[in-house]
Amino acid sequence: MRAAVAGASGYAGGEILRLLLGHPEAEIGALTGNSNAGQPLGALQPQLTPLAGRTLQPTTPEILAGHDVVFLALPHGESAAVAERLGDAALIIDCGADFRLTDAGAWRHYYGTPHAGTWPYGLPELPGARDALRGSRRIAVPGCYPTAVTLALFPAYAAGLAEPEAVIVAASGTSGAGKALKPHLLGSEVMGAMSPYGVGGVHRHTPEMIQNLSAVAGEEVTVSFTPTLAPMPRGILATCTARARPGVTAAAVRESYAKALAGEPFVRLLPEGQWPTTAAVAGANTALIQVALDERAGRIVAIGAIDNLTKGTAGGAVQAMNIALGLPEELGLPLTGLAP
Amino acid sequence: MRAAVAGASGYAGGEILRLLLGHPEAEIGALTGNSNAGQPLGALQPQLTPLAGRTLQPTTPEILAGHDVVFLALPHGESAAVAERLGDAALIIDCGADFRLTDAGAWRHYYGTPHAGTWPYGLPELPGARDALRGSRRIAVPGCYPTAVTLALFPAYAAGLAEPEAVIVAASGTSGAGKALKPHLLGSEVMGAMSPYGVGGVHRHTPEMIQNLSAVAGEEVTVSFTPTLAPMPRGILATCTARARPGVTAAAVRESYAKALAGEPFVRLLPEGQWPTTAAVAGANTALIQVALDERAGRIVAIGAIDNLTKGTAGGAVQAMNIALGLPEELGLPLTGLAP
Amino acid sequence: MRAAVAGASGYAGGEILRLLLGHPEAEIGALTGNSNAGQPLGALQPQLTPLAGRTLQPTTPEILAGHDVVFLALPHGESAAVAERLGDAALIIDCGADFRLTDAGAWRHYYGTPHAGTWPYGLPELPGARDALRGSRRIAVPGCYPTAVTLALFPAYAAGLAEPEAVIVAASGTSGAGKALKPHLLGSEVMGAMSPYGVGGVHRHTPEMIQNLSAVAGEEVTVSFTPTLAPMPRGILATCTARARPGVTAAAVRESYAKALAGEPFVRLLPEGQWPTTAAVAGANTALIQVALDERAGRIVAIGAIDNLTKGTAGGAVQAMNIALGLPEELGLPLTGLAP
Amino acid sequence: MRAAVAGASGYAGGEILRLLLGHPEAEIGALTGNSNAGQPLGALQPQLTPLAGRTLQPTTPEILAGHDVVFLALPHGESAAVAERLGDAALIIDCGADFRLTDAGAWRHYYGTPHAGTWPYGLPELPGARDALRGSRRIAVPGCYPTAVTLALFPAYAAGLAEPEAVIVAASGTSGAGKALKPHLLGSEVMGAMSPYGVGGVHRHTPEMIQNLSAVAGEEVTVSFTPTLAPMPRGILATCTARARPGVTAAAVRESYAKALAGEPFVRLLPEGQWPTTAAVAGANTALIQVALDERAGRIVAIGAIDNLTKGTAGGAVQAMNIALGLPEELGLPLTGLAP
Repeated sequence: MRAAVAGASGYAGGEILRLLLGHPEAEIGALTGNSNAGQPLGALQPQLTPLAGRTLQPTTPEILAGHDVVFLALPHGESAAVAERLGDAALIIDCGADFRLTDAGAWRHYYGTPHAGTWPYGLPELPGARDALRGSRRIAVPGCYPTAVTLALFPAYAAGLAEPEAVIVAASGTSGAGKALKPHLLGSEVMGAMSPYGVGGVHRHTPEMIQNLSAVAGEEVTVSFTPTLAPMPRGILATCTARARPGVTAAAVRESYAKALAGEPFVRLLPEGQWPTTAAVAGANTALIQVALDERAGRIVAIGAIDNLTKGTAGGAVQAMNIALGLPEELGLPLTGLAP
Repeated sequence: MRAAVAGASGYAGGEILRLLLGHPEAEIGALTGNSNAGQPLGALQPQLTPLAGRTLQPTTPEILAGHDVVFLALPHGESAAVAERLGDAALIIDCGADFRLTDAGAWRHYYGTPHAGTWPYGLPELPGARDALRGSRRIAVPGCYPTAVTLALFPAYAAGLAEPEAVIVAASGTSGAGKALKPHLLGSEVMGAMSPYGVGGVHRHTPEMIQNLSAVAGEEVTVSFTPTLAPMPRGILATCTARARPGVTAAAVRESYAKALAGEPFVRLLPEGQWPTTAAVAGANTALIQVALDERAGRIVAIGAIDNLTKGTAGGAVQAMNIALGLPEELGLPLTGLAP
Repeated sequence: MRAAVAGASGYAGGEILRLLLGHPEAEIGALTGNSNAGQPLGALQPQLTPLAGRTLQPTTPEILAGHDVVFLALPHGESAAVAERLGDAALIIDCGADFRLTDAGAWRHYYGTPHAGTWPYGLPELPGARDALRGSRRIAVPGCYPTAVTLALFPAYAAGLAEPEAVIVAASGTSGAGKALKPHLLGSEVMGAMSPYGVGGVHRHTPEMIQNLSAVAGEEVTVSFTPTLAPMPRGILATCTARARPGVTAAAVRESYAKALAGEPFVRLLPEGQWPTTAAVAGANTALIQVALDERAGRIVAIGAIDNLTKGTAGGAVQAMNIALGLPEELGLPLTGLAP
Repeated sequence: MRAAVAGASGYAGGEILRLLLGHPEAEIGALTGNSNAGQPLGALQPQLTPLAGRTLQPTTPEILAGHDVVFLALPHGESAAVAERLGDAALIIDCGADFRLTDAGAWRHYYGTPHAGTWPYGLPELPGARDALRGSRRIAVPGCYPTAVTLALFPAYAAGLAEPEAVIVAASGTSGAGKALKPHLLGSEVMGAMSPYGVGGVHRHTPEMIQNLSAVAGEEVTVSFTPTLAPMPRGILATCTARARPGVTAAAVRESYAKALAGEPFVRLLPEGQWPTTAAVAGANTALIQVALDERAGRIVAIGAIDNLTKGTAGGAVQAMNIALGLPEELGLPLTGLAP
């Protein structure tokens, strides 16, 4: 299985390559990047020592052609044109947002451009998702925040325990913002700082959370979502609360989570009393989940921790790829985090 | 004005001393600590170079006697006995929790011990608080989380714009957990980690938030509060949301905040579009506040950033002291943060 | 005393303003910046809340005219032209490198441009420096690394205890690299990383160290200097070693340091066994120094910790300004660090 | 191949387990720890999700018996007794210091206890080391600092280019100090701080560096070594300088490194102009090396970056194990770092 990576100089592209280097069925083909074309990968991604001698090529359909799998780690809006030119010969896995939303109106509201379409959604843990992925030639990789939030909250909705009104605050490592040269992403600004952004319902991952939770709940779920930037390179901690329906007990909540997450290879419901931390999932394709019922406040509090680049992007992409290609779902994916 | 500090080897004690060193009316008297008595302060608080030669004494009423002001930065439950022995000669400022709550039942529920009483509450920005502080011989310094949360959310309740049901997620720097030698507070564990704790309504600052917000709202406000530990030494970022009452507009929300915070020397409502960050308030007695209305989700989202040790503890204590002693409220208190 | 700051949007400019806000004799006049002219300071330096409403003006001689003191926090090579236009009416304090070196050849070797000249050198602790600063209308503020290194090592050379051959490795916080938008300064790259740069004798602060140490030693001192970038926003830790001359004892080393640093208000030789840490000097104009004799290796090991932005730039500048203007040297300068 | 890990709750033990989980020939047997015996590994090492259900047993010879390989990650001085009881049935790999030094006098000087003996030294890149490891039943894993320093400096000594007098300053992540509950290791103390320790030739890794470099040089090399603690969880950056012998050229230096490191699977000499950073080797068994000649100062400057827990401890241990057992040297060892 020969794989190309478009956008190999960025954080998502680098993580895809790290995982493909450990994947027994993958052979790494073309590596492309636009502003960095012509540069050696060793200068851009020094951690990928086995690929240090490789040179970035421009992102063109010709260079991406002839691969079994093409990972697109491109800016929003660029995937559709590339995919069209590649046709159905390759499995195309889009790590961007272009094909995640089913609702064209929501897309236009949040992105302001015409909707490119909808591809099978690469969150295998969602009810029904694996079926849609098997044999597919197209995969839309979920956003990093929606991955953490959906895994943390869908069991409550699947079991009908929560009112359709979620309040979510998530902290992300800075790699989630990419390698863009923006002043607020400088190390001097980031260290020592917790900083909110996209506040008030304007973050573009919000409609994706609504889409996922509503599908599971069978009714429209409203989402108040506030993302914050944390002084760490990787990781998302999503704190998700929803009003508990009348009569819901702590035992029922716990049972619903145990049931919904049973058998999932990459999602672990922690033992009671232990809470997830991003440090435990660094570099792993694992999501750690815990849930509690706050009886005084009447709310279910579910917390999920993932690595935004692994389970939240590249690992989720490889997991979905494995399913699409008929490989064992866990092939080549790390279960173990790098800690401390 | 001669001040003693009990608990001078801890983070709160060190910050009180840093501020007193810059306070034009303060003379620093006895410094006490129990396990560290006999040690030079220079070894325990090397940043306080002007006090490097001072030696810690044991925390006894005899040593604390004879001061105009006594700051207590002691473990919960130890303040009452000390205060009783000191009598009314000194202004006693308790940085612990013992005298913050008015509801003895809430105290017992969260702390499991008999309630010691209630002292004037040292959050001058709360309606009515300054009157209670003037001339008082006792001050209960608010908790760090309740300071951030109350300042961020009370304007919405004061103006009657929010339903009595708040959902709060806050991130704190590790100094909030003190100098206790616990494995999860080691640097190797903390760096790279966002970690929740006290989840599900069990954190002891919850009833204090309920007390403050309910007093302002004129009705019982429920609070879902989730604290998280962030990989930074100082700072609290509190993300606070509450359902907006029907018909509330963004303009009305903004106006209510501008009005409630007008004239406050230490609370700054940021210009629209700028959001608070903990980095901007490191070492300052400043709270930065911003608010938005998420119309889709129907919620007011208010965010407050403070330094947990300054405005959240030692600065708040000195501010309340200034009021109690009839000094200018801003005397000796830094408005400027240390950034980057 | 009315002060202007050219380059007020950068890290050095922001720190100068933080200190001037606490200086009892200073009134803050014009604030300039080129690419940011027209923007409110509150958006660029949110920690300077008392100046949040001020607007940046362009850096022109007209706008900088009419002040008693002008601080230049400009890129290298821009100070001479500004200074010429301002004449001798104002005390001009250059935080850049332009006027630090006395040797035009060294300047050309390291900077590749013609030498602009030499101004009185703003490191008051150097023998003879205070005399040159008193009444001067020009001050060249030392580089941050040379400040730390000179303070750590000059006592050994002043006492004739060290061979003229120093080996120095220093770690700096990222603010030392300024606000430039460079990929390696992104938070995602910086956190978790110790990274050397300017290795092999090419860093531009090297000739300044040679100049200072040679002046004290009375002979040419060679310097092997390796700077590294550390994952923290502020601080320099300089580890400086030099071969001990034959017969030198640990007692003689310690005595020479005690003597050379006695009476210095901003340099503190720590008690034996305690070593400097950057955390203890954050935001303080203090240098912490410790020294040891490694008898097996035959080397004196001296370590200095400063805040690169305070004692290493803005604080050193204000200290030298105080001397030049005949004010008490310590006026308005913090002795206390912000820790933790 | 069945492996036991004594000291499985610590940082070294956790990293050994992370690597063994990815090693195709390893089966994980007994996991022991003393103070934590009886606890689930999932609570102590939450990143090792596949082992979350395993329980720690006490460290006794009975429990460690019956394995093909036993990793000892114990405090200094405890390995000899355990090894004696286990006999030659198992390959015993000691990650502690007990059996690293050949000079009993140096051991006593630095450790103050009788010397336990010398085992084959697990740094395969050292000339002759692989031969000693093949088939051995005992391995002394090198210290983390000596690994970085030796790999960075031995080529210069092997080629006879450097005077026998090295000056080394290294920065280490906090995991190098272990999980001990010491105040200076608290996150609040560590973040923002560069802190030296063991200054003046007293660090216990010094004689190991002397041993390695002297063996390569064929003469006694003196070492001035200063370790510093950096605000990051993992990684060592070692800056190593040595006076160049007369007539040595930059080309000769580079050539000697290229030759000495050619063919080494885990050591990479970077292209000219690129310098190592710890971020690029997080979790990898890779050492990145670069070297320059500072002609003005007359010194060779060599820099090495490793992960202290991987190549510096657990990865080095597994690499040596592979050799001892006749397995391919690279089996199960990551070449790729986790970045950003």
